[in-house]
Amino acid sequence: MTLSEDQKQEIVNARSRTEKTLRASSAGMEEHLYNAHEVLDHGFVRVIDYMGNDSSIVQAARVSYGEGTKESRDDEGLIRYLMRHWHSTPFEMCEVKFHIKLPVFVARQWIRHRTANVNEYSARYSILDREFYIPEPKHLASQSKINNQGRGEVLSGNEAEKVLQILKDDSSRNYDNYENMLNQENKKGLARELARMNLPMNIYTQWYWKIDLHNLFHFLRLRADSHAQYEIRVYSDIMCKIVKDWVPMAYRAFDDYRVGGAFLSEKAILNMKRAIKGEEVNFETSNMTKGEWSELLKVFPDLKR
Amino acid sequence: MTLSEDQKQEIVNARSRTEKTLRASSAGMEEHLYNAHEVLDHGFVRVIDYMGNDSSIVQAARVSYGEGTKESRDDEGLIRYLMRHWHSTPFEMCEVKFHIKLPVFVARQWIRHRTANVNEYSARYSILDREFYIPEPKHLASQSKINNQGRGEVLSGNEAEKVLQILKDDSSRNYDNYENMLNQENKKGLARELARMNLPMNIYTQWYWKIDLHNLFHFLRLRADSHAQYEIRVYSDIMCKIVKDWVPMAYRAFDDYRVGGAFLSEKAILNMKRAIKGEEVNFETSNMTKGEWSELLKVFPDLKR
Amino acid sequence: MTLSEDQKQEIVNARSRTEKTLRASSAGMEEHLYNAHEVLDHGFVRVIDYMGNDSSIVQAARVSYGEGTKESRDDEGLIRYLMRHWHSTPFEMCEVKFHIKLPVFVARQWIRHRTANVNEYSARYSILDREFYIPEPKHLASQSKINNQGRGEVLSGNEAEKVLQILKDDSSRNYDNYENMLNQENKKGLARELARMNLPMNIYTQWYWKIDLHNLFHFLRLRADSHAQYEIRVYSDIMCKIVKDWVPMAYRAFDDYRVGGAFLSEKAILNMKRAIKGEEVNFETSNMTKGEWSELLKVFPDLKR
Amino acid sequence: MTLSEDQKQEIVNARSRTEKTLRASSAGMEEHLYNAHEVLDHGFVRVIDYMGNDSSIVQAARVSYGEGTKESRDDEGLIRYLMRHWHSTPFEMCEVKFHIKLPVFVARQWIRHRTANVNEYSARYSILDREFYIPEPKHLASQSKINNQGRGEVLSGNEAEKVLQILKDDSSRNYDNYENMLNQENKKGLARELARMNLPMNIYTQWYWKIDLHNLFHFLRLRADSHAQYEIRVYSDIMCKIVKDWVPMAYRAFDDYRVGGAFLSEKAILNMKRAIKGEEVNFETSNMTKGEWSELLKVFPDLKR
Repeated sequence: MTLSEDQKQEIVNARSRTEKTLRASSAGMEEHLYNAHEVLDHGFVRVIDYMGNDSSIVQAARVSYGEGTKESRDDEGLIRYLMRHWHSTPFEMCEVKFHIKLPVFVARQWIRHRTANVNEYSARYSILDREFYIPEPKHLASQSKINNQGRGEVLSGNEAEKVLQILKDDSSRNYDNYENMLNQENKKGLARELARMNLPMNIYTQWYWKIDLHNLFHFLRLRADSHAQYEIRVYSDIMCKIVKDWVPMAYRAFDDYRVGGAFLSEKAILNMKRAIKGEEVNFETSNMTKGEWSELLKVFPDLKR
Repeated sequence: MTLSEDQKQEIVNARSRTEKTLRASSAGMEEHLYNAHEVLDHGFVRVIDYMGNDSSIVQAARVSYGEGTKESRDDEGLIRYLMRHWHSTPFEMCEVKFHIKLPVFVARQWIRHRTANVNEYSARYSILDREFYIPEPKHLASQSKINNQGRGEVLSGNEAEKVLQILKDDSSRNYDNYENMLNQENKKGLARELARMNLPMNIYTQWYWKIDLHNLFHFLRLRADSHAQYEIRVYSDIMCKIVKDWVPMAYRAFDDYRVGGAFLSEKAILNMKRAIKGEEVNFETSNMTKGEWSELLKVFPDLKR
Repeated sequence: MTLSEDQKQEIVNARSRTEKTLRASSAGMEEHLYNAHEVLDHGFVRVIDYMGNDSSIVQAARVSYGEGTKESRDDEGLIRYLMRHWHSTPFEMCEVKFHIKLPVFVARQWIRHRTANVNEYSARYSILDREFYIPEPKHLASQSKINNQGRGEVLSGNEAEKVLQILKDDSSRNYDNYENMLNQENKKGLARELARMNLPMNIYTQWYWKIDLHNLFHFLRLRADSHAQYEIRVYSDIMCKIVKDWVPMAYRAFDDYRVGGAFLSEKAILNMKRAIKGEEVNFETSNMTKGEWSELLKVFPDLKR
Repeated sequence: MTLSEDQKQEIVNARSRTEKTLRASSAGMEEHLYNAHEVLDHGFVRVIDYMGNDSSIVQAARVSYGEGTKESRDDEGLIRYLMRHWHSTPFEMCEVKFHIKLPVFVARQWIRHRTANVNEYSARYSILDREFYIPEPKHLASQSKINNQGRGEVLSGNEAEKVLQILKDDSSRNYDNYENMLNQENKKGLARELARMNLPMNIYTQWYWKIDLHNLFHFLRLRADSHAQYEIRVYSDIMCKIVKDWVPMAYRAFDDYRVGGAFLSEKAILNMKRAIKGEEVNFETSNMTKGEWSELLKVFPDLKR
């Protein structure tokens, strides 16, 4: 169970206090506020606050005195134009604050995105809960044979069981020892800032994470990369859904121009020019490396006739 | 007149659209929303949007599930502690978006603070209005004799008149020529991105400027510096009043610990230690440079007995 | 003339002081150090310092103890891989510091890139020189009829002459008045921080600008955009040449994957899939807006058969 | 042993390759280049590269064409002025790149400083070494009774032994299991990106960390805070020594104005004003909270007469 009864009650309370505001708001986002979307076995994503909506992007691009345009069709056209031409500053005018619970090894990847504001739960000040990420068997992948930092086939049978047992046992034992060190019968107990180092990196931590829409899109786009680890991708999948409800026009533009799009190199363009003239294009004549060629084939499988 | 009748009407409209929200809000800030606070002769500061309030700072510092503490006295104590110990991240959890109209030479100083999001009105795309900053006579200061980048006595009589006449004439002529170049009777007219270069730097521009509370405090603290130019200080004065209404607890802590506070160097501390023991401390025995000594005297004028 | 005799002599002196270092260095960049590359009528770009070379990128990606790989062919492969997959952090490990002289209206666009360190020559502290950007006649473009922020045909004859005369006269008069205000015969003279506001935005300023290679590439890529103004593009053209000499491998990857590349949206990919199957693709069947379609045609002119 | 023989040899090689450069250099820093300064039981700090020296700060502040001033005394005066007045941009013109090996729980605190460039050794791509931080007995502190996130008395006797045994056993067992999971006899083995989650946070990681001098000073100042954890303070102590050799003037200014200095709040200033007039100042009459008063006493112990 991810949330305690007390925590659930706090969320119910928070959702019961409606206030009047003159600010731009988003009906889709109000639905998400405070509610926890479960991720992995103990994690979650909750929206704590947000600023702006689709029309805030338009307003900023126009440095306008009032609302956006009369016609929402024009708003969408402008938003698409801004996205297509990498005009990032109007998207920076929307902001969102999440409360996220996630395993430490995921947090370590996540924090590499430096353009966000973060307040993490302090294990120097407080004692962490006994909550560890134990993968579902179907996600227990082996090392990829092709990709040095990716996953291959899923482990099965004894092998999978053995791995799960190790993860559970070590988590449990290290947490027991963490508690022991903190609380030495009638003794002083080790400082929390030291005891925490005994905890393995599948333990859960949590933080408040605040970011503007442009940088959030950048973060979310990277999950589309085939190199992103499953355990971080599940968080960005949830956030994509939330953003879609918050700023539907901006999300559609993002989806079309970034998620579904692809960057072609100069060489790739040359090959595509040949292909649309009806020439046969293959690896040998492509002047590309194997890696480049296979990435082009992913976008245009029909090149491989 | 700073705002046109249309613009005033847009503000009235914006202030008439109340919505319900589950977000944290600030009654003090709702009063400011959209209203223009006049600055200088044609400038203004308007709040367009905000995120969070005092309790959002507490909530972030505690990575909490619900609201802040029960006792608002505890909230203020925590906020003061965070400010005193330079824990900046909880203050980053509040965000504010301003619409600001300001002379270009002020904008050029302002933009040096890089930790904000900016959308400026484009003089490549649009034609700027005929609005120039002409100082009030009482602000027509001469060059300081002591400080290489400061102001000295105020100019008066003929001298002041002459300066004002120059500023008005050159603004007016350059704007006429700007218009002429854009609009060459029945001709094509110079590109806006080129014509704008004829405009002097007292012309007004405007932008949307979004920043978090920590970085805003940093910006506002720099206006306390005796080296800040009058024309930028008037903007930060207004913003201080707005912030005080938005997050009163955080503002009080800022006022006590930053605005009214002072940084003492190691040498200054040594001298103060001597002073509280009753020793006479003067420039000769201070082991400080003239600049350092005069800055210490500004904080403690009684040292100079 | 851009540089005074004294300044030229300072550059000669700076280039005569060779020191020994254990740091990574770049023979191509040593040739550029301190030398001024002229830009526009009075501007320049000078490299003041740099950190790292191609092998520093490889070293950082590998977090290695010594040099990069034995085989420089492997280094180039890795650099290309990093560029292709948007792994930006290894490119951030190279840094360069420029001294740039440029018109104020260009500086105002430039500074919008916030991920650099800047020290600008202070017109509050010092008096600016009488140097203004006056375009060459061939760059005196009219406003574009199609693009709201672009240029159209070049002005000619009387029209061009008239514009040039205005720019010269206004620059000259405003500078005379700037000097007059600063120096009122035997009087105090207006503070420099105020007098400067009379100067038009084609006056030259200068700054030290320091940036890492990743962010520099981002800056340089934006000049490829057809919307970049000519007067800023000439600066980035020079910087491209310099970067090519500094980190040739990284530059080649940048050139292939960014400058010569193109981003295709999901819709664009769908149309290209149809095209390589031999289907006729045109605007009507493309499901794209006019803007999107014309941008796709720029990359693949042969679609328009 | 922190470094392998191969690694030591790579450092010797790197230190044997001298090149000529026209760049600003620092004799003190050349001595440090590549050499590993040992920290904790397996960690180190190595300078990999640097840009600039004391005169680069002066040059940037003056946006000069050549070197700094003739008189180095003037350089130091200017540097002190810049530091005193929080003019941060000239200090941003120096840059340094470190290679750092540190325990993961320290890395997690460290990375919170977002204004640096980082490349971390990837445990998705590579296998981590069996190296864990085990504190020396004298650093095995208990939880502080006063400070919720600090350390109290040192543990001793059985209690200390027990803790050390736990840390060693759990590190060793978890690492054995990490290896087992990666390498399941004749089987596929768990993906590295999953297996790593079994490792406790006292395992060592390493990264390249590049930062400008202003932000480095900010980082180093925070270690002066009594709240900084010992295990991160030892790293900043070494870096302080390195910076002192690199930019001696800037370091002296930092040491006097930041490390040895103190920030007084408005209330603290009022109390100090009373004290230098000979009034008795004590907690009761101070109008301060207990926390504020005890922090003021740390700076001026003589107040407590």
